[in-house]
Amino acid sequence: MPQLRRDPIVGRWVIIASERSRRPVDFKTEKPPSRGGPCPFCEGNEAMTPPEILALRKNGGERNTPGWNVRVVPNKFPALMIEGDLDRCGEGIYDLMNGVGAHEVIIESPDHKLSLVDFPVEKVRDILWTYRERLVDLKRDMRFVYGLVFKNVGDAAGASLEHSHSQLIVTPVIPKLVQQEMDGSKKFFEYRGRCIFCDMLRQEIESEDRIVMNEPNFVAFAPFAPRFPFETWILPKKHSTHYEQIADAQIPELAYVLHTTLRKIEGALNNPPYNYIVHTSPFELVDNVEKYYHWHIEIMPRITRVAGFEWGTGFYINPVLPEKAAGFLREFKV
Amino acid sequence: MPQLRRDPIVGRWVIIASERSRRPVDFKTEKPPSRGGPCPFCEGNEAMTPPEILALRKNGGERNTPGWNVRVVPNKFPALMIEGDLDRCGEGIYDLMNGVGAHEVIIESPDHKLSLVDFPVEKVRDILWTYRERLVDLKRDMRFVYGLVFKNVGDAAGASLEHSHSQLIVTPVIPKLVQQEMDGSKKFFEYRGRCIFCDMLRQEIESEDRIVMNEPNFVAFAPFAPRFPFETWILPKKHSTHYEQIADAQIPELAYVLHTTLRKIEGALNNPPYNYIVHTSPFELVDNVEKYYHWHIEIMPRITRVAGFEWGTGFYINPVLPEKAAGFLREFKV
Repeated sequence: MPQLRRDPIVGRWVIIASERSRRPVDFKTEKPPSRGGPCPFCEGNEAMTPPEILALRKNGGERNTPGWNVRVVPNKFPALMIEGDLDRCGEGIYDLMNGVGAHEVIIESPDHKLSLVDFPVEKVRDILWTYRERLVDLKRDMRFVYGLVFKNVGDAAGASLEHSHSQLIVTPVIPKLVQQEMDGSKKFFEYRGRCIFCDMLRQEIESEDRIVMNEPNFVAFAPFAPRFPFETWILPKKHSTHYEQIADAQIPELAYVLHTTLRKIEGALNNPPYNYIVHTSPFELVDNVEKYYHWHIEIMPRITRVAGFEWGTGFYINPVLPEKAAGFLREFKV
Repeated sequence: MPQLRRDPIVGRWVIIASERSRRPVDFKTEKPPSRGGPCPFCEGNEAMTPPEILALRKNGGERNTPGWNVRVVPNKFPALMIEGDLDRCGEGIYDLMNGVGAHEVIIESPDHKLSLVDFPVEKVRDILWTYRERLVDLKRDMRFVYGLVFKNVGDAAGASLEHSHSQLIVTPVIPKLVQQEMDGSKKFFEYRGRCIFCDMLRQEIESEDRIVMNEPNFVAFAPFAPRFPFETWILPKKHSTHYEQIADAQIPELAYVLHTTLRKIEGALNNPPYNYIVHTSPFELVDNVEKYYHWHIEIMPRITRVAGFEWGTGFYINPVLPEKAAGFLREFKV
């Protein structure tokens, strides 16, 4: 069973997943992910994954057989385990609990060769719909507190398999950066009585300097203080706390904005590695979070190396003005 | 002039150093650092760096000429500029200021080929002494708030030059993670009336499970909730707030513990890329920080890839139990 351990000073929870571990002597170098053998995410290899949790099959068909469009399976090497109790306990000044949670893979296409930018936009709608369905389902389990949807593309961004996929990790604790976003936006709300994300959107739309796309319901823009060159955030214009509250009618526009922004980034920067992360509220409405938290997607291209000190200190150096990056992406035709 | 911009939600300051920037079209891939041409850090190439700030010359000699042992120069491509005023200002809901600060390079040896683990331990003493001297000197400038000493080794850890060196960035703001450490240890102090780092040390020394080295004045151990496999912290046993308070008499032991720990890590893991960061208090004694903050060095080997979501969320997955990592390093003979 993996463990969740809490750093006693800064309160950061870390998953110690030693089941995934090799022997120390195997930790010699940073190896590229292995590419040998058949791909477990390809159509026809359904038996290579744990049994599917959900699959979109436009023409029906049996579970765990070919004919699907998007397929969700448990991660074969999960960071957290779905079975068991949390068993919170202390060890002197330290806190730990069992690594109970969920770790799922959203296989985005039966085709190994296509990446998200190659898909038709309708496929991106299906993927966004699937994120919502899985979050809605998992939040029913009272042991779970937070659902984290993310996508790693390319070796340098931490992707271990080439076949296009996203991941969902459901945790019994709130990730530290989300907690900080909640604390910061709560403080602003207490002082100003407004959502800071809504204020930010208003200012960005008015100035236009950092806008990448401005559609009726969603905006893509470079944040004022980005950690990474070409970092881009997508926010719904209407205040909304949880990603999974998104209405069916809004999904096509979000799919269009996400797809187009990624196509701009991939085209302009020549297929860089990237990550995107859906930042959403904890499952439960605690502490009036619905008034001040605003879900959004953060896209982080990985075109500069991050020196270790940057995530060891929270102090980032970004060599590109966000106004310049946004202008470049805004003008880039896809 | 670089800018310091503050993320309005989580309060993270980011240096936007667009002077270092290439054109957007140049941001095509994550290039390895160039190795062409003569090395500006080598003995005999003193004219290739900005004029030296400090140099240890055991046999005397002219400034900016060969014959030095350790040499400190301004970074030729600084993230922050030493001249100018902060000019703090707002831009709607955003805060920014001029990127005023210092960015220095500590060239650890005239010899290009040696890395820190190859040096005799006496050389490591000189390096640690130099860190202290530069911090003591720079804290006299009232514009500056924090001094960050760090070292990147290897491409994957963000080193842009092979020649062994450390860096010192002095900032007009407190790095976010240091602020969080201060907030967390202050909270503990208010509740318990003790330094949390001192309590942690007591528990670690008693249990021995995570100890790598235990010397009379310094301890090296794996933290309870490490972000990275083989992450190791070095703490002085006696409560002390600022690195630059270290007494001359303590430097040899710290040099021995740092040098030996790094030799264990390099030997056991086959020369992995790594970073170390000196975590110390802000220059000024604010808010009783001397009671609860405890300086230390964090060493982070880079043997696993960090997926972007990990620093996008503050949620880390570590595949190695720290007890196992510490035991392995403790037993490893160097």
